Amino acid sequence: METLTAAIISPEELLKHWQGHRALTRRVIEAFPEKELFEFSIGGMRPFLNMVQEMLAIAGPGLKEIVTGETQPYEEKKNEFKTKAEVLAKWDAETEVINSYFAQLSPEKFHEMNNLFGQYNFPVIQNLMYFIDNEIHHRAQGYVYLRALGITPPPFWERY
Amino acid sequence: METLTAAIISPEELLKHWQGHRALTRRVIEAFPEKELFEFSIGGMRPFLNMVQEMLAIAGPGLKEIVTGETQPYEEKKNEFKTKAEVLAKWDAETEVINSYFAQLSPEKFHEMNNLFGQYNFPVIQNLMYFIDNEIHHRAQGYVYLRALGITPPPFWERY
Repeated sequence: METLTAAIISPEELLKHWQGHRALTRRVIEAFPEKELFEFSIGGMRPFLNMVQEMLAIAGPGLKEIVTGETQPYEEKKNEFKTKAEVLAKWDAETEVINSYFAQLSPEKFHEMNNLFGQYNFPVIQNLMYFIDNEIHHRAQGYVYLRALGITPPPFWERY
Repeated sequence: METLTAAIISPEELLKHWQGHRALTRRVIEAFPEKELFEFSIGGMRPFLNMVQEMLAIAGPGLKEIVTGETQPYEEKKNEFKTKAEVLAKWDAETEVINSYFAQLSPEKFHEMNNLFGQYNFPVIQNLMYFIDNEIHHRAQGYVYLRALGITPPPFWERY
């Protein structure tokens, strides 16, 4: 199979790339004042909190589904937060969940099909790249919110 | 080398992924009214045109450098546009430039170091993923601009 002959990124590199992005997203969450994290929006869009809830509903649960084969419907509202500290604590807990499940992915798994959340049937590698892309996409919207609030966001290129 | 033993994405898949994102970015450019593409901004950020100029200054020129080994300094302002049609025409021309240079990348090349624009010394695969991530990041800022203008952006998941 063509896709299995040319190796341009390893699972370890993809995980490092993903967690690097997640570390940056964590700093973007931190940069929001608590009230604005929960309430501020532009153009009828969601507050950044709700975008973070989407990221949390996708990353850990999606990866768990891929690894265990147990499909659960997509559930965004299952994480309810009252404070920014609670959001950050959940973010950190999911970092470990992702590391733990990712370590259980065999290299062959990345090209198997997975019907994500019982709805989106794509190869696992495409599921994972979508998780990362979607996080970059919504985090960047948080960057605009921060700028509109007069707050300088963390540099995009810092991933640690 | 660990990174060369586990193949989870092929060069062809990465190109398809990249061009899928570029097709979406093209639709975001198209969605802007001409005046707002050049002028609208939020929170002191650049107009979307200038973000597109950044994407154009990175993608084709960066890939050309990787393939040819000829380093040129990063030059954002070399694409000067007077109309949205000119921007879209340049975007389409760069699509072909990218396809053409990408076809010249050997699989081994992706883990060689490249000092991008004489400044950023990273493995080629990291250069390329940065190109894509940076485009997603700025395009998402364009999404907020469009929403603030009362315009519905194209769906994030459509890549063709």
